[in-house]
Amino acid sequence: MVPHLTTALAGPINELEARILESMPAIERWFRLEWMEHTPPFYTAVDLRNGGFKLAPVDTDLFPGGFNHLTQDMLPLAVQAAMAAIEKICPEARNLLLVPDRHKRSPFYLQNLQRLVQIFNQAGLNVRLGALDERITEVQTLALPDGSELRLEPLQRSQRRLGLKDFDPCTILLNDDLLEGTPALLQGLHEQYLLPPLHAGWSVRRKSRHFRSYEEVAKKFAKLLGMDPWLINPMFGQCGEVDLHSPNGLDCVRGNVDALLAKVRRKFKEYGIHEKPFVVVKADDGLGGMGFMTVRDPRELDDFEARARQALGRDALPPTEVIIQEGVPTYERIHDAVAEPVVYMIDRYVVGGFYRVHAERGADENLNAPGSRFVPLAFAESSQLPRPGAKPGASAPNRFYMYGVIGRLAMLAAAYELEATDPEAESFD
Amino acid sequence: MVPHLTTALAGPINELEARILESMPAIERWFRLEWMEHTPPFYTAVDLRNGGFKLAPVDTDLFPGGFNHLTQDMLPLAVQAAMAAIEKICPEARNLLLVPDRHKRSPFYLQNLQRLVQIFNQAGLNVRLGALDERITEVQTLALPDGSELRLEPLQRSQRRLGLKDFDPCTILLNDDLLEGTPALLQGLHEQYLLPPLHAGWSVRRKSRHFRSYEEVAKKFAKLLGMDPWLINPMFGQCGEVDLHSPNGLDCVRGNVDALLAKVRRKFKEYGIHEKPFVVVKADDGLGGMGFMTVRDPRELDDFEARARQALGRDALPPTEVIIQEGVPTYERIHDAVAEPVVYMIDRYVVGGFYRVHAERGADENLNAPGSRFVPLAFAESSQLPRPGAKPGASAPNRFYMYGVIGRLAMLAAAYELEATDPEAESFD
Repeated sequence: MVPHLTTALAGPINELEARILESMPAIERWFRLEWMEHTPPFYTAVDLRNGGFKLAPVDTDLFPGGFNHLTQDMLPLAVQAAMAAIEKICPEARNLLLVPDRHKRSPFYLQNLQRLVQIFNQAGLNVRLGALDERITEVQTLALPDGSELRLEPLQRSQRRLGLKDFDPCTILLNDDLLEGTPALLQGLHEQYLLPPLHAGWSVRRKSRHFRSYEEVAKKFAKLLGMDPWLINPMFGQCGEVDLHSPNGLDCVRGNVDALLAKVRRKFKEYGIHEKPFVVVKADDGLGGMGFMTVRDPRELDDFEARARQALGRDALPPTEVIIQEGVPTYERIHDAVAEPVVYMIDRYVVGGFYRVHAERGADENLNAPGSRFVPLAFAESSQLPRPGAKPGASAPNRFYMYGVIGRLAMLAAAYELEATDPEAESFD
Repeated sequence: MVPHLTTALAGPINELEARILESMPAIERWFRLEWMEHTPPFYTAVDLRNGGFKLAPVDTDLFPGGFNHLTQDMLPLAVQAAMAAIEKICPEARNLLLVPDRHKRSPFYLQNLQRLVQIFNQAGLNVRLGALDERITEVQTLALPDGSELRLEPLQRSQRRLGLKDFDPCTILLNDDLLEGTPALLQGLHEQYLLPPLHAGWSVRRKSRHFRSYEEVAKKFAKLLGMDPWLINPMFGQCGEVDLHSPNGLDCVRGNVDALLAKVRRKFKEYGIHEKPFVVVKADDGLGGMGFMTVRDPRELDDFEARARQALGRDALPPTEVIIQEGVPTYERIHDAVAEPVVYMIDRYVVGGFYRVHAERGADENLNAPGSRFVPLAFAESSQLPRPGAKPGASAPNRFYMYGVIGRLAMLAAAYELEATDPEAESFD
């Protein structure tokens, strides 16, 4: 199936596309200079939402699955980027230890692992898989849909190094987001490169921290292009700890929802956007779509509170940190289904992407949910590169170049974020 | 037109392909280590010949035209490689000055320039074209087949820098092979990056010097893979100065032809190859196909001598340095026409390639001649990456991976060569 831009979107996003295209050399140089100062995450996937009036990242994944959703045509780019990454980190390496997610064993996820093995194998590394589960003491064989197999081996930890039987890697690549905390097995590995670093795990990361960095990046970038950062930056507020058991537990959320809706309304007025603003309330740590709520009116929180308390009666939840973020609708469609672009990067390079498509969700809802499908990003056409002459909004490669730029801004924000949260960094505060 | 491997070649080349595929991580690591010690040329195109029993580079171009023959699908790879190259050389650069070949103005060559401008523009540089011709004092407009135009501007040289009006580049990229010598305009530019360096020009380079380096590289690589280097290395001899005016002027060539044919015959016997060996006699400097001669029997040189002397009566030629090289036939065919693969690289990365096809030439002749056509290399298929499982010789991506490896060996040889001939290098002899 070949994806198409079924809607030629109108409005500010086309101006943004035109400005980004005409500024291409300046943008690429700006990224070059930023990467001289900041180290990109090893690999990154960024979910974007294109609302026609604004384009913004909504999630930045530092342990991306889904490499299987990239087309075969994009693989050479991924291999080349992987070569560049390895060359910088550990050029003499022979071996890469890939550590899969502890819980994912779906055929799709196994294909993602297969794809990662393929990419790093062709970039020049022997790749083997180690199980982040001390209960696994024998080699497991994982069957893939194409009839091939992956071997998942027990990890062997020594005082200073992690490896497998007869396999001592220079680099350990994590594909588990460490949501449940940092396993002891992975701590204190100072002789090997552990990528991404442990503090990129969701037990440490906070969305609000990421979006604060993104705001900083978006402002710099907007200054370079002479534009309003709001066009690419989703505004947000946060509440440190929300305790649904306490009578006024949701007050902070209510206040933030109110304030944020008012801010968005002012922006809509400024740009003549005739839409009803909404905000999204979600857990500040990485608990996926859990607790994800679209709010158009602060009174909707009353309902939520009532229902939540009922549920809590059964099973008390610990206080949760909450982020309240400006909602960005996605107005891209593939065959009438709501779609959002996801951009994949290895090292500093965009290597591909896909549309996450969900037939049963609305333009203002989270599409990262059961039932979503994946369509490789508009690369089926003969040219994958931006065409400076084309009409804004009408050229898929131009649209994708813009997505690649915004994806890289989010990746740069993650680089800022990881510097700020690095426990081993010297503090000059 | 989609190229196909019309002949599934048999014999040693399929074993080589299988061995190269199974050794992929070791090969890529070996290249990684070599590139830590040696700087790749900025861009390189390598002509290969696949004779079924051996695969060898026959020409390594350090000022490649022909980027227009790469498919659009390969452009993202080229842009990514260009980004990596610029980042290493001059990350703060805004401007790149591209200096076209002084003599080429065909529509094809102009498309090559257009493609180079596109690649480096999208890699993040403002690119402008400067004319290596002091008679050009006004901006010239060059019309392209697609209706667009290129601007060719007069160069402006100051004491220490080269540029254009209001354009001061960090890097100057030469696309002229400097066959006629090194223009004064390009000398003494110590503040800017001049790429490739002047001693990569054909007024300095010698094919024999390149193939001596290639032999060294081929031997190292063959040791890594545990194979006979002859399978990828064309043997050669050389004659310092051949003076056709002198009575015994061709004696050195005759002796070399004799010795080389005998060596090739021994190799053919060793491998059970039932072919008639041939050698190629050509100018050791870069004079294109001029003086290119296929010889199967030393007596053919008598005829040549007689004809050459006749010609020389009219217009005396200066003595010429000559290389005598083992001839490698090309047994690849596209629609019955003889074809040879050409591999394109930017920095250390293979970015694409094409088949040079000539309907009127034989398998033992030079195809780089008027009448040749160009067909993008087997990239039209869904997978551009090697498929370790496929039958040797039957998978175009696997074949192309092998071509990319041999192309990179020739590029590495050029790196060795440029180090050895660098006039500014300290000598430890």
